[in-house]
Amino acid sequence: MSTPLRLGIAGLGTVGVGVVKIVRQKAALLSARAGRDVVITAVSARSRDKDRGVSLKGYAWEDDPVALAKRDDVDIFVELMGGSDGPAKAATEAALAAGKDVVTANKAMLAHHGQALAEQAEDKDRVLRFEAAVAGGIPVIKALTEGLAGNEITRVMGVMNGTCNYILTRMQATGQGYDVLFDECARLGYLEADPNLDVGGIDAGHKLALLSSIAFGTQVDFDAVELEGIQSITLEDIRQAADMGYRIKLLGVAQMTGRGLEQRMSPCLVPDASPLGQLEGGTNMVVIDGDAVGQVVLRGAGAGEGPTASAVMGDVMDIARGFRVSTFGMPATALKQARPARAVTPAAYYLRMELQDKPGALARVAAALGEAGVSIHRMRQYDHTTDTAPVLIVTHKTTRAALDAALAALPGTGVVTGDPVALRIEEV
Amino acid sequence: MSTPLRLGIAGLGTVGVGVVKIVRQKAALLSARAGRDVVITAVSARSRDKDRGVSLKGYAWEDDPVALAKRDDVDIFVELMGGSDGPAKAATEAALAAGKDVVTANKAMLAHHGQALAEQAEDKDRVLRFEAAVAGGIPVIKALTEGLAGNEITRVMGVMNGTCNYILTRMQATGQGYDVLFDECARLGYLEADPNLDVGGIDAGHKLALLSSIAFGTQVDFDAVELEGIQSITLEDIRQAADMGYRIKLLGVAQMTGRGLEQRMSPCLVPDASPLGQLEGGTNMVVIDGDAVGQVVLRGAGAGEGPTASAVMGDVMDIARGFRVSTFGMPATALKQARPARAVTPAAYYLRMELQDKPGALARVAAALGEAGVSIHRMRQYDHTTDTAPVLIVTHKTTRAALDAALAALPGTGVVTGDPVALRIEEV
Repeated sequence: MSTPLRLGIAGLGTVGVGVVKIVRQKAALLSARAGRDVVITAVSARSRDKDRGVSLKGYAWEDDPVALAKRDDVDIFVELMGGSDGPAKAATEAALAAGKDVVTANKAMLAHHGQALAEQAEDKDRVLRFEAAVAGGIPVIKALTEGLAGNEITRVMGVMNGTCNYILTRMQATGQGYDVLFDECARLGYLEADPNLDVGGIDAGHKLALLSSIAFGTQVDFDAVELEGIQSITLEDIRQAADMGYRIKLLGVAQMTGRGLEQRMSPCLVPDASPLGQLEGGTNMVVIDGDAVGQVVLRGAGAGEGPTASAVMGDVMDIARGFRVSTFGMPATALKQARPARAVTPAAYYLRMELQDKPGALARVAAALGEAGVSIHRMRQYDHTTDTAPVLIVTHKTTRAALDAALAALPGTGVVTGDPVALRIEEV
Repeated sequence: MSTPLRLGIAGLGTVGVGVVKIVRQKAALLSARAGRDVVITAVSARSRDKDRGVSLKGYAWEDDPVALAKRDDVDIFVELMGGSDGPAKAATEAALAAGKDVVTANKAMLAHHGQALAEQAEDKDRVLRFEAAVAGGIPVIKALTEGLAGNEITRVMGVMNGTCNYILTRMQATGQGYDVLFDECARLGYLEADPNLDVGGIDAGHKLALLSSIAFGTQVDFDAVELEGIQSITLEDIRQAADMGYRIKLLGVAQMTGRGLEQRMSPCLVPDASPLGQLEGGTNMVVIDGDAVGQVVLRGAGAGEGPTASAVMGDVMDIARGFRVSTFGMPATALKQARPARAVTPAAYYLRMELQDKPGALARVAAALGEAGVSIHRMRQYDHTTDTAPVLIVTHKTTRAALDAALAALPGTGVVTGDPVALRIEEV
């Protein structure tokens, strides 16, 4: 039996407490599996006195996570504080500088500083792992980096924000509107402190940027992710999509195209009978296409104490077993800068807009779309009691550029009120 | 860059050729990911002259896989011959004895000799890996051994034989009978040389025994797997199950119970809206329940050149990156012998039998079931033109022991013709 592996944990929120529980309650099992004991030597959090429902007895306490990161009795610095900058980044850098391995659940930090941190880790011959940062308990980083290492990955796709999926599936199931369910999520504690991270697609976009990097051997480029949130999705959209055999999902897609790397996180229509369409509530799903393996689908809880702690422990156990793999699957210095490609893969789109109740209004919209090169597959106008009429259009396959040109031309028709909603139809 | 990792491949059937293609066509990608070149130095197969659609130029040839396994220029012996004993086992043992790591796709060999081979590997401080042996391209061994290493696994379940799932889903979709689809599978090359390995559930049972070992830290015990094939499933069963909202799947379940380890591979009814129920054609699915992670579902191609070669390469790349993990997730000498528990978890059952068209026949059957402690939830007798009547019974939850007692009592009623079909209803 080797020497024990010593963890220093910074951040004792839900996930940190989950990790403490696993290490305390399953010492024998972890030891048998890793061939050495896994222990916690020191912890750090904002408040020392808070009752967390778990004993911290025997662990040294540090008020300052940077001090924790540098301790001689810490082998792995486990960063569970969150936040893209500030203490999390400072402590991670300090840990790597001090020659510690780092395990983190911090998607925001890696989405913004992943390349620099990965380079720092490699300079020091240390590992920086982040299974818990993407899709909670699903071992997707491991599947992509290791299990599918013999594949050229052609596409990575997924539903990676449980809160958004909860809102969208509850809208469908209960007929309640977005605002009602947003408030419910706030009450249930499902939302980040800044809710826009969830409903604006930013959190899920961070995760997609990390998966892209591994899948395509490119430097993390979160700024290149086309982001669109779910705030403008109405019950009417959900119902119309259902009528056509689709569900609306906040879907991330990363795909290497001839024109560069396409990364988008946006509400899309997916076939309701597909695994993605069937995904209910807070569950996450990642769909990976590889040239040898075909399609692999992974599904599981996207958040929560147990699932996220499980992912952290997966990384810890790898390190305990002596496994050292590059942060993004190949040396950070070998990762290429991808040319961002804005949605070049053509698709059909679902459009919803409000038309003024004037003669010829529909014709003017149809003409504007036609001039932009967008042809109409279906068009439907609804009964209405107000002075604008809801109109729904499904286009034939078109590029995003053509669609954007069409959308830009709509105000000029003089008959469209407000901003149209445009959702991509993804034939997954 | 370290020294190249040198593979010796024994067996150049579908999977072997797939591995050769990946190594030849993706040399740069593999090298970037592993931090070293991955090369093939020598191969072995039955016939040297066969055209396999891939160049073997530059590889040494060995007629004898044992000789290949011992070659000085081989670091990893890749065993893709198949067969539980004979040359595959002899060559694997020779490779380990000669200090080589081994990667194999051979579920039969590991189901029968996994414990001895794992012990031999550890004696020599070598690794023996087998991702390709279970569920084709799905990285499930990796997920279970590594990604979920912080979990106590409570259940592993899955559809792991694509041929059986193809037959069952085609019966439902086309209304063709078992025999017709069996013949179709034979024509399409979907069946093993001994078809009973597929349709008798043996192949899938091998896979379940391997997953059990990792999940529960127990020695592989294939003989303790309760096996039942799909040969007796009729179109009528498929239709009746569908009427009740179920699909019939050849489902493997491994579960640690208070009375020991339950392992069964048998046709079961699963809810048609569940991920398992929705699984079509040759696709495989594994469902893992862990105490921290909750439920993780993995889905992908269960067989074929690309998917299986992808799994082999996952293992090869781990070894190339220096990762060394015990065959079954903990040292072989630490694996316990589990007490086999025969289906102790209660379930409802679906029963179909032929009754002679006599007054009181149904009452006699109901009485026999009741005396054995099996109570009836639903019972239905069909129109018939022959002199026996098909009767369908759904029981309340009962133990397998009570059900077996009931089945044993049925011939004594004097009204049951032939063997009843009894299928477990699994509320997944």
